[in-house]
Amino acid sequence: MAGDKVVVLGTYGSMFSMRVQVALAEKGIEYENKEEDLANKSPLLLEVNPVHKKIPVLIHNGKPVCESLIIVQYIDEVWHDKNPLLPSDPYQRAQARFWADFVDKKVYDCGRRIWATKGEEKEAAKKEFIGIMKTLEGELGNKPYFGGEDFGYVDVALIPFYCWFHAYENFGNFKTETECPKLVEWAKRCMQRESVSKSLADPHKIYEFVVSLKKKLGIE
Amino acid sequence: MAGDKVVVLGTYGSMFSMRVQVALAEKGIEYENKEEDLANKSPLLLEVNPVHKKIPVLIHNGKPVCESLIIVQYIDEVWHDKNPLLPSDPYQRAQARFWADFVDKKVYDCGRRIWATKGEEKEAAKKEFIGIMKTLEGELGNKPYFGGEDFGYVDVALIPFYCWFHAYENFGNFKTETECPKLVEWAKRCMQRESVSKSLADPHKIYEFVVSLKKKLGIE
Repeated sequence: MAGDKVVVLGTYGSMFSMRVQVALAEKGIEYENKEEDLANKSPLLLEVNPVHKKIPVLIHNGKPVCESLIIVQYIDEVWHDKNPLLPSDPYQRAQARFWADFVDKKVYDCGRRIWATKGEEKEAAKKEFIGIMKTLEGELGNKPYFGGEDFGYVDVALIPFYCWFHAYENFGNFKTETECPKLVEWAKRCMQRESVSKSLADPHKIYEFVVSLKKKLGIE
Repeated sequence: MAGDKVVVLGTYGSMFSMRVQVALAEKGIEYENKEEDLANKSPLLLEVNPVHKKIPVLIHNGKPVCESLIIVQYIDEVWHDKNPLLPSDPYQRAQARFWADFVDKKVYDCGRRIWATKGEEKEAAKKEFIGIMKTLEGELGNKPYFGGEDFGYVDVALIPFYCWFHAYENFGNFKTETECPKLVEWAKRCMQRESVSKSLADPHKIYEFVVSLKKKLGIE
């Protein structure tokens, strides 16, 4: 759709912003990226997402869409001709939605507990994180991508977390690759796509960000 | 699709099971309802939902779909000719998904805190609950249903909570109707549909269930 105006309100390093960036890149859509300072949210963000006041928000021709997985589905439905993300079969769609929802419900919160807690709680989070990754690796199986031969919805939902692995692993003292080699192979395969490599944050910057966040929150 | 075999694993009174029942009734689909005892989950439930081990699960011709909103979308996609639940326009679809997701993220947890907590925590939950309902009432506006003229996805997501209002109100000592008269008018409008009235649990049975649950959990 020529003449479309697409704006993304996001924050560098946010897994949820990166999902939107990867999906737009897959579709070859140009957009304006507006960086939000979450400590000082813009009047625009508060206007377009008055309910949750959260990033990311996609503004398409002036109309806002909120919540990252809802945005990715919207992008897939509007620009359906290029690189479909969700499969066309209803059962396969339901399975893709199930696993993207699983990522949403499990990974962020557990990953955060690895660096934001200490002692037993940290150890439990680490164990849980590895369990979650093993479950995902089981679902991936021997397929190149979660949906099969083609990069799709579940890949978009999960891959942004990959640039946080370095931080999780450093604070948790473990290696995802040792535990889940096939999952890391999948992540490296995704990183060969320009849509992913140009959208994901620098793992070292994420690590430094977490270091500064820990200081700010008084977590030693 | 004649010859379809549809089974629902659910529990009486579960808002999430009721969503599936309402959606199937809207489509005129006959199904077998298998009541699950959550204190003693069936081998079938553990087999078809090994990840979350939760109800509801829809089993369609032997293939399981889990998570209530994903099931409702699946039902809408498979039986798309009768009573469409999601709108066809991508932007309207995204808005419907946003509000159903809002219900999922807010209502259950807050409602539970009304009867499961005491003192300040209970008062905060009550206030939050009324705030959530006012937000939903604002979104409803003067439309008969959330999507406009026709009963749809957000209505399916929210209406099962209506049979819990009696319990919330009794334990919280408030009246939703006083605070949100238009929302309660909407609920009564939905209840005029056979798909809803025959799927929703008896509010008095829900109340008695909460009384017994409070005793069991030692909450006086």
